[in-house]
Amino acid sequence: MIPDEVFRSLAIQTESRLVMVVIDGIGGLPVRGKTELEAAKTPNLDRFTSKAVCGLIDPVSYGITPGSGPSHLALFGYDPFRYEIGRGVMEALGIDIPLSKDDLTARGNFATIDGRGIIVDRRAGRIPTEKNREICRFLGKEIKEVEGVRISIYPGKEHRFVLVFRGEGLRDNLTDADPQKDGLKAKGTEGLSQEARRTAEIINLYLKKANEALKSFHPANTVLLRGFSKIPHIPTMSEKFKLRPAAIATYPMYRGLARLVGMEILKTGETLQEEVETLKKYFDQYDFFYIHFKKPDMAGEDGNFKMKVKAIEEIDRILPSIFKLKPDVLVITGDHSTPTPLKSHSWHPNPILLFSNYVRPDRIRRFTERDCQRGQLSRFPAMDVIPLMLANGLKLKKFGA
Amino acid sequence: MIPDEVFRSLAIQTESRLVMVVIDGIGGLPVRGKTELEAAKTPNLDRFTSKAVCGLIDPVSYGITPGSGPSHLALFGYDPFRYEIGRGVMEALGIDIPLSKDDLTARGNFATIDGRGIIVDRRAGRIPTEKNREICRFLGKEIKEVEGVRISIYPGKEHRFVLVFRGEGLRDNLTDADPQKDGLKAKGTEGLSQEARRTAEIINLYLKKANEALKSFHPANTVLLRGFSKIPHIPTMSEKFKLRPAAIATYPMYRGLARLVGMEILKTGETLQEEVETLKKYFDQYDFFYIHFKKPDMAGEDGNFKMKVKAIEEIDRILPSIFKLKPDVLVITGDHSTPTPLKSHSWHPNPILLFSNYVRPDRIRRFTERDCQRGQLSRFPAMDVIPLMLANGLKLKKFGA
Repeated sequence: MIPDEVFRSLAIQTESRLVMVVIDGIGGLPVRGKTELEAAKTPNLDRFTSKAVCGLIDPVSYGITPGSGPSHLALFGYDPFRYEIGRGVMEALGIDIPLSKDDLTARGNFATIDGRGIIVDRRAGRIPTEKNREICRFLGKEIKEVEGVRISIYPGKEHRFVLVFRGEGLRDNLTDADPQKDGLKAKGTEGLSQEARRTAEIINLYLKKANEALKSFHPANTVLLRGFSKIPHIPTMSEKFKLRPAAIATYPMYRGLARLVGMEILKTGETLQEEVETLKKYFDQYDFFYIHFKKPDMAGEDGNFKMKVKAIEEIDRILPSIFKLKPDVLVITGDHSTPTPLKSHSWHPNPILLFSNYVRPDRIRRFTERDCQRGQLSRFPAMDVIPLMLANGLKLKKFGA
Repeated sequence: MIPDEVFRSLAIQTESRLVMVVIDGIGGLPVRGKTELEAAKTPNLDRFTSKAVCGLIDPVSYGITPGSGPSHLALFGYDPFRYEIGRGVMEALGIDIPLSKDDLTARGNFATIDGRGIIVDRRAGRIPTEKNREICRFLGKEIKEVEGVRISIYPGKEHRFVLVFRGEGLRDNLTDADPQKDGLKAKGTEGLSQEARRTAEIINLYLKKANEALKSFHPANTVLLRGFSKIPHIPTMSEKFKLRPAAIATYPMYRGLARLVGMEILKTGETLQEEVETLKKYFDQYDFFYIHFKKPDMAGEDGNFKMKVKAIEEIDRILPSIFKLKPDVLVITGDHSTPTPLKSHSWHPNPILLFSNYVRPDRIRRFTERDCQRGQLSRFPAMDVIPLMLANGLKLKKFGA
């Protein structure tokens, strides 16, 4: 792995423009002999593949199925084992809550307890989202702070919410305040270090107050908290790579991940066209763009092969307008595989293509898992994509004499 | 990465002969569709490729453009991030100055300062090399030592020279005594640790004396020093791999790098023929030979595609006389790419072929970047070449039971 200080000493700012297109959940598995990419008609991708170098990337490591957090960190050039993004933070990013480095986050469930404090339903019967919003509004007004720590509650879907504690000196090495199982007694959190004990006390005080406030809200008469976390101390892409990076994504979680590494978040719309319009609009103002296309992952999670093929074909049709901007370096890849037979993220490597003026095109004709495996980039860790892009943009000086 | 102690416990001395042919700057980029290797007629290489296993090696890491130091260290089996070779040491090696482990080196420039000590020309108008030699002779006689530390000055080209401080306890964690820009005041060096302060004082005393001595030498009326460095503490190839290694290279820098890892430097001539004659002459006396062919890199740096093709073809013609020696293991590869379109080293991987009695020939027919990418060795770090050669020479015992 390339040490951080090597990048710091080698990276230089130049005018070259790097574009990283991330197709969420792109990799798949064969169904009747063909993967989603193999079944899709992708004339633009194919044409472009012929001019590029190809390979396969591993999001994190052989056999590891990554969440969106680690897979994106790796693509952004960070070691996903070194920088962990907690569940609370991921949930907060997913609903676009701005976080500062002092904020402590937690994922929450509304749940049902009986008279003896035993959890009888960890999801409070999956109360409707509308009901959830109503309870959050109530709780938010009822408990604004505990011992000087400000508390905000943000509703999610059904029984889920995000809690943010804002104050100085909060720690996140805490046990879950959630027994993870029905039939057990609800419990508070414990601090795993001397310094974390005060934080645990504050959270446990909050839980006590919340239980009192929720008495009349059966089945949502208690809260369970888990995944206590703060944002990791992570150097920005500008500090680490001397890039001026910007992100274009329609989903808040990906914008949040990009914000974690210091990207500027560009306002965009809901469609592929709008995302590419945004890229065009800001193309002169940044030198690195991360553009995220979400749909293939959703189709993969649904197990809908045809819909994933369609989503890929739709992306293929938008690509020429990206090529037209003439980025100096263009990468097209995925953050992880979401094969329709698995209906979930998977550990499989993903195809990647890299185009610049300084590649040896490797005679690969199609952008699929099995074609790209014969490419010159070979199979390599996603973390090495950014160094390669920097090199191809002539943004890295020589190492050593 | 294989830990050093693993090699120490597994390596054994045997009679098998390993030959590593390093073609400097071999890798290229396509010009009118073909790379330099693809355009060259290389019947001998092609014939040999068919009997060997092939692959691509990365000198240092994806995207990193290596200097000759790191790329050679990697080929010799050392982690280039662990052992850094400073600029001063590289310059000293480049003009064949023998260095011991106590010697502190620096790169120097003759420069011009005005009456207020402001640098007006960091290169002293690029004085002729002959003038440089004359000033170095004078300075060398004028300042032989400072506080018991002996000082030697060696002229390079134009305004460049190398300074060597010889004495005990000298440190190299020092700032450059060079503001790197015209228009700034010349400055001394600073020690970056308590122990380095004494070294800094000695160097700054030297600078004071040199400035006085050079008063009448306008435009070369001061010296700038940078890249203070000592040779790294590096186990020899004999310690690490139990090899008896020898080096054949026409350029001093490569002989110097080989000396750093404990190779015996064999006296040779200027031509390919003479290098191969040297190999033949000493073939019984060592069990590892590094033989370095320089020309393709020079043509690459000049951006001269035709000359690089010619240099490759010339090397192809000499190869049969190496094959004739019947080395047990033969590797042909490059230290880094020097594509003619870039006129410089680059980050691209280089083709490698390995021949021994124990390979599964992989049906690759030509020794080019794009053919070798389909080889059985796949794409791998240059650091792993030596372990592979040792194995093929049956010089590594089984690891574990």
